[in-house]
Order: sequence, then structure tokens, then C-alpha cells
Amino acid sequence: MSEEKLKKYNVGILGATGAVGQEMVKVLGERDFPVAELRLLASSRSAGKVVDAGKFGKVTIREASDDSFEGLDIVLGAAENDISKKFVNSIKASGAIYIDNSSAFRLDPDVPLVVPEINPDDAFKHHGVIANPNCSTIITLVAINGINKLSPIETLYASTYQAVSGAGAKGPVEMYDQAKAVLEGGEIKTGVFPYQIAFNLIPQIGGFGENGYTSEEMKLQNEGRKILHMPEMKVSCTCVRVPVERSHSISVIAITKDKLDLEDVAKAVSEAPGCRLVDDKASNVYPMPLDTSDQDTVFVGRIRRDLANENGINLWCCGDQVRKGAATNAVQIAELFVK
Amino acid sequence: MSEEKLKKYNVGILGATGAVGQEMVKVLGERDFPVAELRLLASSRSAGKVVDAGKFGKVTIREASDDSFEGLDIVLGAAENDISKKFVNSIKASGAIYIDNSSAFRLDPDVPLVVPEINPDDAFKHHGVIANPNCSTIITLVAINGINKLSPIETLYASTYQAVSGAGAKGPVEMYDQAKAVLEGGEIKTGVFPYQIAFNLIPQIGGFGENGYTSEEMKLQNEGRKILHMPEMKVSCTCVRVPVERSHSISVIAITKDKLDLEDVAKAVSEAPGCRLVDDKASNVYPMPLDTSDQDTVFVGRIRRDLANENGINLWCCGDQVRKGAATNAVQIAELFVK
Repeated sequence: MSEEKLKKYNVGILGATGAVGQEMVKVLGERDFPVAELRLLASSRSAGKVVDAGKFGKVTIREASDDSFEGLDIVLGAAENDISKKFVNSIKASGAIYIDNSSAFRLDPDVPLVVPEINPDDAFKHHGVIANPNCSTIITLVAINGINKLSPIETLYASTYQAVSGAGAKGPVEMYDQAKAVLEGGEIKTGVFPYQIAFNLIPQIGGFGENGYTSEEMKLQNEGRKILHMPEMKVSCTCVRVPVERSHSISVIAITKDKLDLEDVAKAVSEAPGCRLVDDKASNVYPMPLDTSDQDTVFVGRIRRDLANENGINLWCCGDQVRKGAATNAVQIAELFVK
Repeated sequence: MSEEKLKKYNVGILGATGAVGQEMVKVLGERDFPVAELRLLASSRSAGKVVDAGKFGKVTIREASDDSFEGLDIVLGAAENDISKKFVNSIKASGAIYIDNSSAFRLDPDVPLVVPEINPDDAFKHHGVIANPNCSTIITLVAINGINKLSPIETLYASTYQAVSGAGAKGPVEMYDQAKAVLEGGEIKTGVFPYQIAFNLIPQIGGFGENGYTSEEMKLQNEGRKILHMPEMKVSCTCVRVPVERSHSISVIAITKDKLDLEDVAKAVSEAPGCRLVDDKASNVYPMPLDTSDQDTVFVGRIRRDLANENGINLWCCGDQVRKGAATNAVQIAELFVK
């Protein structure tokens, strides 16, 4: 891809019919991404369907196959790991840059893992594939990026409160169906989640590893270290699914090398790209998932000194994981190549 | 009160019509507390109403006044702080032991603060008043009590996921009304909570102090130190209201003086009074609020080594805050005096 000469780009979306794929179409339109052709790829189940792609008009879904990628400049991946692995070589062979939201290649040393507000330069070291990080990881890192620049974070503790849409488009449907059944006395059906999520909490996202942490919990450590170029950073995380439709929230403790001034922290957060300081204790104002859904900024509040370690900062952040935590971050990576 | 001679006790409940007061009536019955007279006291609004007190039959609510307590052996307090302060001297003058669930006297050095599974002996040092701790504090401390006996906890981190019934009987009504409005398109009304809680999170419980922590967040430190007799224990807490009807959940990191063996920790938790180990990662089994409501045990799971500090143990616990977090704990304190 020769970014200098092109004015408009042929963009493919692999997994275009899922929650993240649909949001990618929306975000490309909203951000006026210079699209020449928009090619929507999905499984054979969806092939042939005509979808409304907003400013890009009606687009017919094509079945993804090894020869689906010819002529594309950029492929945004919104498919599961197995699909991503199946097509990565065809995408690379086509010459397109593959910006993949799956976790298949995130920890591959040849694949940059990029949050454009934090490590945009890494994107240009790609060999055909750039990985989009985990949703909670993106939101947490955007929130603490300013603090980390004041003094390096040595230890990061996080307890997450993750929305049901993080499990895909069927997550909210299941939650609302269950809520209706609770209110009206019907049968509770589960499918997306292993247990009832309406009016409940499920302290498991992903499978369990040998160390007792879930795959989702390990991402904040493994991806956070790579994105921040801080391989020694200590990270300990608990991930919990909560009955919220959209926007993940995270209770964070960031312990820095030096003791920070709280006013400096607030200033750093308010000036950090992609962040908004929402922290007015006198008026009971703080980030909440309802207020942060369907937009791209990470809201940060409840900033205070940790009571256990004077070098620690406690905060609470919320961000829309389908947008900034997935679709928008991928489109922002693509924008790095539009000059 | 001469506990050796009495077989049955005259028990009063101050604030009998609230969520905790009603639960106290239920728990006294369930646990076969030896009640001679059950006297239910509330505000003038409720006076004269006849309530079904289960095995105690129909009881007429009386208006609480300074002469309401004569002849009582035990008064269980389920009223707000101002009501508790208003009547404490009358209760003491009556000779009854006042077991108070409000936070009015919890940090008073003359008032024992008791979790019967942890510090029952403190109860006998009372001067007329014994305080029942904060709900999240009780649940968290019952969960970590066994670990603390293996090696003293030096630092305790907690992020809470607190049910709406913690705000009283009207909390669940408001949540379900809002959920109905979301599902059916009606108007969202708030009253108990400052913002919509259905399908949302509110990271504030109680008012903000100068240090940026809420009153609820400071209770785990201040009450935890007193109950455990560990004035140096470092505690840092974030309290969040979640759209769950009943049972608080807490994501805990307990950093102990010594590095512990994880099998020893699981054994200590399973043997700790009031605890149940619910931790089978192979079968995706862990505590959830739906499973822990309307019973008295604190469920503990997700036990694993902290990744930031090898002396740290991470865990997840759930308990019914109206019962073990309030009513049952108060009745258990009363039971200490029944021999």
C-alpha cells in the first residue's frame, strides 16, 4: 500500500455482520474515512444479504474466502480468532494492511499492538498485520496514559465491570429477554452467558488458565505491557460481567514510581488524548456507563490517593467498548496511514 | 440483664418497618431466638399498623418514644443514625442491651463493633451498646478471616459491587420500575438513587469526604481495623452500586505478611466460620449474587495468587447484605448473650 499516492482506500471488513463489524461501518462513515470501495465479508450464512451501510449506501455481504481480499488497501478484522487465523495469509498476500480486532496475533512479536493515543509509532513497524487490543485494556490504558507519563506505573490493579455487549450483539438481547422474564415471571433462558446475567453478576469472562486467572484478566497484563513498552509492569486484574448494555467500567489503582500531586494527576488526565476528566465530587459527578455509551472518549473520575500506598492513585473510568474498545480504535489505526 | 437466669427475652426492634427491621423479625423466628415479647417500634407514620411477624403472630407497631424500651432485654436497632442517637440514652436507661445497625456508634471506643465469627469476645465489653458493622465490611471480613489467621493481612484492596437493597426496601422497587420503563419505553424516575441504576452503575455510595473517598468506602478501613484489632492494616476501597436486587459482591486483594500456599488458603476459607468455599474453576463455579441471596453464608471463590505481589491473594466473595450484612449479624450478637 502506498499511502502517499492514494486519496481513497479500498476497505474490507472481515466479520462485518457482528456487533464490532457493524460499528466499524458506522465509525468509518462518521469519521469520514476516505473509502473508495467498502467490501463487507462474512460467513456463508450472511452472504448475499444487502445491508444499509449509511453514507456508503447499500452493500451486499460477500462470503469471505481466500480470494476475497484482492484489491483491498485495508482490512479491518472483526471476526473470531479462528476466522482471523484462517484468512491472515490471504490478506497478507493481497498486500492490504490487516488491522485485526481478534486476540489471535496480539502477542506476536512481529505484530504491533496499537492504541493510537499511546503508541502510534508502533503501527508503522507492521509486517502486514496490526492488532487491535482487548476492549478493557484499551479503556484502562487510555485512562492511565497521562499518569504513566508523570511517573511510570509499577503496579496496576483493576477490577472490571463489563457490559453485556462485550459478548457480541446477542449479549444485550439475552440480558433484556431475561430482565423481561424476571419482571413478568417468565422462564430465564441462557445461551450467550453461562448463567443469568440480568440482575446478577458473573465473575468470569473467558476461560480459566492454570494460574486461576481468566483469559480476559491476563490481557490487561500481557497487552498492557506490550502497548506501554513496560515489560516489567505488574498487573493484577479481576473481570466481572455486569448487567449493563454498553460501556465497560474499571476500578483502577495505579501505583507509580514517584508520589504524584493529585492536581497534576487531574491535569494530566484532562490533557491526555482520548480522555475526559469527569470528576466533580461537590456535585456528585463521575463517569457512568449510561453517559459514556455510543461515543469515543474514555471518561475518568473518582481520582484520589490510594490509602494503602502513597504512590498509588485510585480512579474509576468508563468507555464504550464496542467503539473505543474495538471499532473506533481499529479505524483510528487505519487513519494513521491516511496522510 | 441477667442472662443466666432468663430463659426468654423481651426483644425490641427500633425501625421495625424498614428492610433490615423486617429481616430481623424473620431471622429471630428462623433461628428460634428465645423471644418472650417482641416489641416493634417505628415512626408515628407506621404506629398502629398490625404486621405479620411470622411465628410471633400479629404484632402492632408502636411509635418509638423515650419510654418505649422499659422492660426490654435486647433492642435491635435498624433505624438511621439520627434516630439511633435520639434514643440511645433511653435504651441504656432501660437496662436493655442495644445492638445497633446504624453507623452512629461504630467507631466509639466505648462501643464494641462485632462480627460474631471474628471477635465475639468484644461483645462482652459493652457498656449498653454494641454496634453492628457495615454490610460490605462484614461480608469482606468474614471472607478474609481465615486468611488473616494464616498470616496477618497488611494491605486490603476492595472494589465492591453492591446491591440496590443496601439502600433500603425502596431500592429494588426503584430498580425494577426503571427496568420496566427501559423495556417498555416509559419515563425513568429516580428517588432512592441519584441516577438511573437499572442497566447502569453508580460509583458513589454515601457522601464524599475530603480525601475523595465516600463514607461507605472509609468504613472498610475504619471498621475493619477495629473488628480485627489491626489498627495498622492498610485498606483502600472503591464502592459501586450495581443493578442487582440482593447480595453484595466484593473483588478483594489481601496482601499478607507472609507468602501463603494456595491450598492452605482454600482450606482456611472452607473452614472459616460463616464461609463457604465455592471455587471450582474446572466447572465454572464461583459465587454469584443470585445464588447467595436470602441466606446467611458468605460465599468465597476465584481464589488465586496476586500477580503484582506474591504475598497477595485475590478472591471474589458474595453475601446477602440484608441478612449476614445486617439483620443476621445483629441477631447473632444477641445470641452471644443467650446461654
